[in-house]
Amino acid sequence: MSQAKPIMFLQLSTRDLEFDQALAARLQSQLASKPQLQSQVSAIIEQVKEQGDQGLLECVRRYDDIHASRVAELQLPESAITEAGDHLDPSLKEALQHAAERIRRYAHKQKLASWQLNDECGSVLGQHITPLRSCGLYVPGGQAAYPSTVLMSALPARIAGVPRVVMVTPTPLLSMHPSILYAAQLAGIETIYTMGGAQAIAALAYGTETIQAVDKIIGPGNAYVTEAKRQVFSQVGIDMLAGPSEVVVLCDGSADAEWVTADLFAQAEHEAQARAILLCPHQDFIDQVAACAGRMIATAPRADIIRQSLNDHGLLIHVRDLDEAVALANRIAPEHLELAVQEPEKLLPNIHAAAAIFLGSYSGAALGDYCAGPNHILPTAGGARFASPLGVYDFQKRSTVVRCSADGAARLGATAACLAEAEGLFAHADAARRRCADKRQEEGS
Amino acid sequence: MSQAKPIMFLQLSTRDLEFDQALAARLQSQLASKPQLQSQVSAIIEQVKEQGDQGLLECVRRYDDIHASRVAELQLPESAITEAGDHLDPSLKEALQHAAERIRRYAHKQKLASWQLNDECGSVLGQHITPLRSCGLYVPGGQAAYPSTVLMSALPARIAGVPRVVMVTPTPLLSMHPSILYAAQLAGIETIYTMGGAQAIAALAYGTETIQAVDKIIGPGNAYVTEAKRQVFSQVGIDMLAGPSEVVVLCDGSADAEWVTADLFAQAEHEAQARAILLCPHQDFIDQVAACAGRMIATAPRADIIRQSLNDHGLLIHVRDLDEAVALANRIAPEHLELAVQEPEKLLPNIHAAAAIFLGSYSGAALGDYCAGPNHILPTAGGARFASPLGVYDFQKRSTVVRCSADGAARLGATAACLAEAEGLFAHADAARRRCADKRQEEGS
Repeated sequence: MSQAKPIMFLQLSTRDLEFDQALAARLQSQLASKPQLQSQVSAIIEQVKEQGDQGLLECVRRYDDIHASRVAELQLPESAITEAGDHLDPSLKEALQHAAERIRRYAHKQKLASWQLNDECGSVLGQHITPLRSCGLYVPGGQAAYPSTVLMSALPARIAGVPRVVMVTPTPLLSMHPSILYAAQLAGIETIYTMGGAQAIAALAYGTETIQAVDKIIGPGNAYVTEAKRQVFSQVGIDMLAGPSEVVVLCDGSADAEWVTADLFAQAEHEAQARAILLCPHQDFIDQVAACAGRMIATAPRADIIRQSLNDHGLLIHVRDLDEAVALANRIAPEHLELAVQEPEKLLPNIHAAAAIFLGSYSGAALGDYCAGPNHILPTAGGARFASPLGVYDFQKRSTVVRCSADGAARLGATAACLAEAEGLFAHADAARRRCADKRQEEGS
Repeated sequence: MSQAKPIMFLQLSTRDLEFDQALAARLQSQLASKPQLQSQVSAIIEQVKEQGDQGLLECVRRYDDIHASRVAELQLPESAITEAGDHLDPSLKEALQHAAERIRRYAHKQKLASWQLNDECGSVLGQHITPLRSCGLYVPGGQAAYPSTVLMSALPARIAGVPRVVMVTPTPLLSMHPSILYAAQLAGIETIYTMGGAQAIAALAYGTETIQAVDKIIGPGNAYVTEAKRQVFSQVGIDMLAGPSEVVVLCDGSADAEWVTADLFAQAEHEAQARAILLCPHQDFIDQVAACAGRMIATAPRADIIRQSLNDHGLLIHVRDLDEAVALANRIAPEHLELAVQEPEKLLPNIHAAAAIFLGSYSGAALGDYCAGPNHILPTAGGARFASPLGVYDFQKRSTVVRCSADGAARLGATAACLAEAEGLFAHADAARRRCADKRQEEGS
């Protein structure tokens, strides 16, 4: 323990002359699509698209190190899912049930509903909501098992009413934690393929002889998965392009420095690229957090990742006041934002870019990651400026509906014909005018 | 007129042995990103990103043929917008006002609202809705002027409450139809740059010395614009990747064959790549439409485009019955779907993939294109399987909000700690458990 290397936080002050440049350099997005990755991923997608099952099997052998002679062997037997609970610690089962129940309750509130409105001419305008017919859920595998991600992606799909939900994850059955399978069971998933990377994305987007293509692909993955999602977008829908996880903790100094440090550590332990940022107007509180970090790292089980993440991407920023902190939080547009201040509700109306917002010290992001209810699949890398957390709405879509009365068509037809002519679209004008003529005939008769 | 070349519709029947392959071949998406286009567009984006104003000016000179020595010159003077109405035909002004009013009314119904729910432990969970801070609207220029597209993209942005809305269109002021500027005025647009193509998308995504970057880019464009949007996605949000326009007209034979033909022509006149498809169980009705098309093409002002579009992409499909027609419509997942049948409401519940649905003969798609109310910026190329029409919701985003009570944090903390440990994320478990300990202390004290 005594040899533990210290954490070398980058500390900035908004009073620094070079603050803006220093912050921008630290926040540089790692999401930009890189040419070498682009062509590697294109080649994998092309192989699966062109060679179907055989191409997929070869890629899964090469990149996932999962060996199968038929694609059907990649699919888990149904019993693996239905019997998953038998081998699971009861407290873990209960925790998953508790989380599932809360995620469900929140998701239900998000569900879009159809509506219609009638205009003064007797025409009806509506918005018709339908679930996607199918979706593919990508669940990262590898070193860690993420049953929480299974719940977070599958439950909204189920609540939206998607009839066919397929899960893919690059972990062979024998190495798969039963909690993953139990989460799948809780979420009503029946089809799981053990495959990952760009090859899994390609199979879901284009289909193979064995695997039917889906309409949309959801869920975070590594750089290959992200690039593959970018490339198949428009062939299928995608949720977002996910980068490393991030938290901004905004403090007025009233919170427990150990809690704040614990929250920064929780973010940092995800991966070396994760970003944990503290904003505070009090230098003494910042110093306390730095000191806590120095102490707590000694006993942290994932100290190496935490240290690397905080050294490379961590930031302690001394701000002038809370208003400046809010402006900075909006500029960073973080995935997670903790308002660890005494009156967080006062700041909330001024927050316009943060995917998941946690109010007050009790609301640690870790609670949201697992079981508060809201989704933990969130836009990163500034995506909160324009995108939303994953939700039921991602598994539903809208169609507009127009039902014109004869009278309505006549009025709209005149306007449409006028505009179509101004745009030089004469066949539009003709189609519109026919609906008016009919009305006039009726009136004349 | 007598020399007018005939329309050579491809006619298929679902009874044909090779029907599936023939349909698939005809529907092949033209949206796939092509390597040569990819690298051309990458180079343009790189130039604007690296060289800022100078790079942008050079690209705008080369590709838009608009010559300016400073980027500021690309911006229209405010007076061009505010005075646009002075030079416009009153009936056209009135038509634009009528359209704007209806688009506004429909869009208002789409607006998302924040909500919150309280759980049994006194915790509060919410969804916090905020407008984007800025967006860029791409309005195609070139041969045609599209004031309707200005209304369709700008009004929802305004209704969402986006404070900064920037429009770009590749038409120099002197060639710009005043209806475009009047539509901008109606929609409250103050900033218009005359630039287009990948260079305009790059400037909006990355910003230059003169143009501030936006959060999201909206609106259809040509192949360069579409590829550029794909490449800048994640740096900024985008709406969708738009392909050629499409209509499926589903008939039971009760509609006027001339109206149906007029609607197919309206679709076809957009461009040679547009797709107009008729589905009908009655061969005699199909024959009538083919005959009408032969007659009507002789007087159609845009006959050349219509003929080319219908010859290359048009389809008359003889189906067994309306159920099969509905299944086919869902498979095609068209941008526009007309249910030109006697009881369209009976079919609607079975439609699960169509972006804009028009019920009954009076509801021609042309009315929806201009003024029925719903948006005309719609997913194409099968995108209706997973995407929605442009709407106010595209200019808003959700944040999740969690406000835990001490009691709530204790219960959630226990569950989160259990799950975090199962996932091997021990710093998450620590952060969660601190919230429980505190509760226990309180209870003990």
